[in-house]
Amino acid sequence: MTSVPDSRPLVVFSPSGRRGRFAVGTPVLDAARALGVDLDTVCGGRAICGRCQVTVAEGELSKHGIVSRAENLSPSSEAEARYRERRGLAADRRLGCQATLRGDVAIDVPPESQVHRQVVRKPHEARDIEIDPLTHACYVVVDPPDMHHPSGDLERLMAALARDWQLDALHAGMPLRQTLQAVLRKGDWQVTAAIRDGGEIVALWPGFRDRLYGIAIDVGSTTIAAHLCDLASGEVLTSAGRMNPQIRFGEDLMSRVSYVMMNPGGEAELTAAVRQAINELVAEVAAASDLPASDIVEVTIVGNPIMIHLVHGLSPVELGTAPFALASDAAVSVPAQDIGIRIAPGGYAYTLPCIAGHVGADTAGVLLAEAPYERDEISLIVDVGTNAEMLLGNRQRLLAASSPTGPAFEGAQISAGQRAAPGAIERVRIDAATLEPRYRVIGCDLWSDDPDFDEQKPACGVTGICGSGIIEVVAELFLAGVIKSDGTIDGELAGRSPRIVSDERTWSYVLSDAAPVITIQQNDVRAIQLAKAALYAGARLLMEKLGVDRVDRIRLAGAFGAHIDVKYAMVLGMIPDCDLREVSSAGNAAGTGARIALLNKGARARIEQQTRKVEKIETAVEPRFQHHFVAAMSIPHDSDPFTELSRVVDLPERRAAASSGQRRRGRGRRR
Amino acid sequence: MTSVPDSRPLVVFSPSGRRGRFAVGTPVLDAARALGVDLDTVCGGRAICGRCQVTVAEGELSKHGIVSRAENLSPSSEAEARYRERRGLAADRRLGCQATLRGDVAIDVPPESQVHRQVVRKPHEARDIEIDPLTHACYVVVDPPDMHHPSGDLERLMAALARDWQLDALHAGMPLRQTLQAVLRKGDWQVTAAIRDGGEIVALWPGFRDRLYGIAIDVGSTTIAAHLCDLASGEVLTSAGRMNPQIRFGEDLMSRVSYVMMNPGGEAELTAAVRQAINELVAEVAAASDLPASDIVEVTIVGNPIMIHLVHGLSPVELGTAPFALASDAAVSVPAQDIGIRIAPGGYAYTLPCIAGHVGADTAGVLLAEAPYERDEISLIVDVGTNAEMLLGNRQRLLAASSPTGPAFEGAQISAGQRAAPGAIERVRIDAATLEPRYRVIGCDLWSDDPDFDEQKPACGVTGICGSGIIEVVAELFLAGVIKSDGTIDGELAGRSPRIVSDERTWSYVLSDAAPVITIQQNDVRAIQLAKAALYAGARLLMEKLGVDRVDRIRLAGAFGAHIDVKYAMVLGMIPDCDLREVSSAGNAAGTGARIALLNKGARARIEQQTRKVEKIETAVEPRFQHHFVAAMSIPHDSDPFTELSRVVDLPERRAAASSGQRRRGRGRRR
Repeated sequence: MTSVPDSRPLVVFSPSGRRGRFAVGTPVLDAARALGVDLDTVCGGRAICGRCQVTVAEGELSKHGIVSRAENLSPSSEAEARYRERRGLAADRRLGCQATLRGDVAIDVPPESQVHRQVVRKPHEARDIEIDPLTHACYVVVDPPDMHHPSGDLERLMAALARDWQLDALHAGMPLRQTLQAVLRKGDWQVTAAIRDGGEIVALWPGFRDRLYGIAIDVGSTTIAAHLCDLASGEVLTSAGRMNPQIRFGEDLMSRVSYVMMNPGGEAELTAAVRQAINELVAEVAAASDLPASDIVEVTIVGNPIMIHLVHGLSPVELGTAPFALASDAAVSVPAQDIGIRIAPGGYAYTLPCIAGHVGADTAGVLLAEAPYERDEISLIVDVGTNAEMLLGNRQRLLAASSPTGPAFEGAQISAGQRAAPGAIERVRIDAATLEPRYRVIGCDLWSDDPDFDEQKPACGVTGICGSGIIEVVAELFLAGVIKSDGTIDGELAGRSPRIVSDERTWSYVLSDAAPVITIQQNDVRAIQLAKAALYAGARLLMEKLGVDRVDRIRLAGAFGAHIDVKYAMVLGMIPDCDLREVSSAGNAAGTGARIALLNKGARARIEQQTRKVEKIETAVEPRFQHHFVAAMSIPHDSDPFTELSRVVDLPERRAAASSGQRRRGRGRRR
Repeated sequence: MTSVPDSRPLVVFSPSGRRGRFAVGTPVLDAARALGVDLDTVCGGRAICGRCQVTVAEGELSKHGIVSRAENLSPSSEAEARYRERRGLAADRRLGCQATLRGDVAIDVPPESQVHRQVVRKPHEARDIEIDPLTHACYVVVDPPDMHHPSGDLERLMAALARDWQLDALHAGMPLRQTLQAVLRKGDWQVTAAIRDGGEIVALWPGFRDRLYGIAIDVGSTTIAAHLCDLASGEVLTSAGRMNPQIRFGEDLMSRVSYVMMNPGGEAELTAAVRQAINELVAEVAAASDLPASDIVEVTIVGNPIMIHLVHGLSPVELGTAPFALASDAAVSVPAQDIGIRIAPGGYAYTLPCIAGHVGADTAGVLLAEAPYERDEISLIVDVGTNAEMLLGNRQRLLAASSPTGPAFEGAQISAGQRAAPGAIERVRIDAATLEPRYRVIGCDLWSDDPDFDEQKPACGVTGICGSGIIEVVAELFLAGVIKSDGTIDGELAGRSPRIVSDERTWSYVLSDAAPVITIQQNDVRAIQLAKAALYAGARLLMEKLGVDRVDRIRLAGAFGAHIDVKYAMVLGMIPDCDLREVSSAGNAAGTGARIALLNKGARARIEQQTRKVEKIETAVEPRFQHHFVAAMSIPHDSDPFTELSRVVDLPERRAAASSGQRRRGRGRRR
């Protein structure tokens, strides 16, 4: 062929920079598809959905040697004019499916016309989410049946999807088939199909619709949270939570496992309870956004291994005893109705992978949300619940473990402990001179020494102390010298303050003397010591396995991480040495992980791959864990240099005490 | 490389003729696998299943230049000796997994050691079935869990299946997962998995087992039949049938569709009824073979389109009115529990494809069983039920249609008609001179004129006349001159026989004057005329579309085909001209088709492909159908040369009468 200059119109797309020449009359949408430009459409080019809106950037593009003009697109079509009239269209906007090329143009694709747009992160979240959902809406006009060429309604729907959307070999399950004929006729053969992963029709609606919805569900042993998302925009429309009704079978996980052990078949009751709560939540968030639950086509689920077993209808008994065998550690994608979740009847439920018998899909969610595997710095990520799940590492290597902290950090097994709710003490300061406390309670912004506190405190009064309050009071008592490095409350100070009171053989500290009296007892300090020692020992064990002495950053996930003042965590020796500016809350990272898996299909493959690569450390069978645990009992602890603490807390003499005599006593008692 | 003679042992397999050289010590099973020889195994080479039994053919193989000796296999291993002792092994048999090569051998693989063995056909069946089921048993020893390398039980099961059976990327649904942990522990990590299509674990049992089972189900509007098969041997272990309980919603199909039209949501009742009957049948055949229903891993289903809709839980209303749109015409493979069928919880149900709105999966079953697409001769295959489904053609081209015969051939809508049951007249002969009848009833081998008939007839007496009896009595009355070619009973013969009696404006023939009196009334003859005209017209329409005047063979499927005397079918003009030696019963061809699809996975692809190729003719919209129908009302009929009839029935004068004056009357009345 001789080289004749190509006289066809040149189109240049922004922001992708892709360009190409196309015949006069080519729709902008077709040019974009041919060039792989990210330009959305749901109606397949029928001027119905308005997702393919573009603008012409007018002016000279010297780089390309062209002058871009709005007139170089065809005038508005009738269909486009109808769309403009009915649904509104900014003056400079064109529908990419209607505007055809007449000459050279530079086309801007605004963010809302891109399928793969980014959702801006929320506070605490590690990164933006790129929207690339597994399920898409596809509008089609289906051929009606013809007796001369008999074929099934489903086959004609599939033919339309193949013709207009290049979707071949689609699968359709029984629920879809059961409504198919009625929906096609209700829509007068115009329908919108939800296509999952390019391979299955999971829902079908009469007429045109351009929004699909999904729910990210975080099944905790105490609370269950659900986030209803628009799958196209990534927006969270409604979030809601409720108590896990399994609590009636046992407050903590192990007592629920015991229930099943004592009551063979009892897993069915626990499963029914958690599924009912999930379905109530699904119905609640759907109703709050004015949708039927049947518009929800996808659910993603995170939770600890026992919760995942129970949601899936599996007995959790193997998780109750060594070797803590999971039924499966892989991610599970099944029709939602197979696990009793009522969304669109053909919709799917995706459960993130578990990592080990004690490190569940919730930790996989944290891993996905925090993505330490994308960083060079060594991250320690801790999700504190009844146990503390930990991840340590970077792009080279990642380790995971679960430490048996017990529920003390949640305010449980603490004499005046309670859940984080109005009336709970959450912040505490103790005057080192007078040993007098002041505190703040949930539901009131004032400190207790504020003259208006009594007036403004919650109606319920001061009812107890929650997890973050416990951390602070123990740390402040240590800083004030009331608690010694071995964790004992120093009865010798009883002479200095009436708040140090005798409690038979031990001493207590009276934090609040209004009814109910709130005291910090010796056993409460011991519970916190045990919990923080477990947490620290787990982190230390992972550091040892990874071969590092220090971590570059620490992320604290979950409600505990969001409420704790990290300075006090370090004072107590809960977390290893780290620049405090690099210690931060990761928010509800497990739930964020579920949301990422909901909104981005590539994230599923990513987390499945990453969890396989994670090295699992079982603290229960690692002799070094016991070693670290014992060493970590003292306050702050006794195992490695603690440079950050000395920078944060200006009490060198106290550290000196902590690292001398007290330490030996602590050790001696544990052995 | 220089050409050094290969000194490794040569092994030659029969009957495949495959041969190859292998290192000394290679197990015979491994050599067979390497050569692609069909040698079965379930236990994966552990001397447990005994499926890989072979014999050594001793002697000189001059063709191969070797001498085959039993000593050229290793002596019996300990495991083989254990098998021989526990389960028995013929003296000359060896286990292919244990016997290893020491020298040249010729190995015979007996039929029972081949996976793809043939099942010898039953009477009526068109061909043998090659056994090649979709689901296989695989025995594995799974690694127990290890806390140092935590992984899910499912993942370790899959690793064992990958290691021993080269099965990768297996899927496992929720039902399998729900029993997984208990089964692995019950079997002490030795389990047998049922693997479907090399892709999914559908069942798991503790320990070793080598038998999997499947059920072929034929869902008729009147009766439902189930055949329990051993998937490895192809043997039918138990068959059973029961009434379709949907009959309480309407005797025939259309009245059941009407029920749903009048009672919105009524399809749920019909679905529940038919599924319950299927489950009762499944339980019945399983119990009769001493199996739990959970040992059944696969079900195949045939039935007419309305039955298939209802079994699948789909409303049949679209099938009640033009354009008779099926929800789907393709085959459907879904977890059996998705359509409420209780077999192994992870088992599957495969429904054969439908051909058109009136030509269902039952006809697809007939098509698969009869395989006219493999023949050069033109076959006409007719399945007579409430409608007559017809297939016509050969390997070049196949056509299908359904003719609205109504239920007269089943004895319904006939004054003395009844189902084929003891007491029903099934054979009739009428003396052309005296017009006296003799007959046989179901339940007695004697003719009614036998002196012992009254003594030996069924206890219920002579209760009515069934489909084949009706055909015969009308044909015999025609041959005796009682019925004229236009179908009227000739009242002028009343003077010759007291059996011709007046019935107000028409005449009747008294077939049996014992109580209850059984008469053939003019309306009964009309019903048969209408039915046979519909049947003939459908066949004629297909012949016209195919461009043939004559068919090479006719196969009559179903109970009707099995009981009818084809000579009478030809006398009445039900079927087109054909050498009577080529007219035969196809037995329960629909059920046979379901059985083939159960036992041979390739048959599924084959029937799916063939049904897509079939040209569907809708009799309701073909003007030529009406034309043929009217022409076919006279007896035998009036549309084409009828050479076979004159050969079979020695009544040329009657044929002359039929083809002259009577015909015109018949035509005139219908127009």
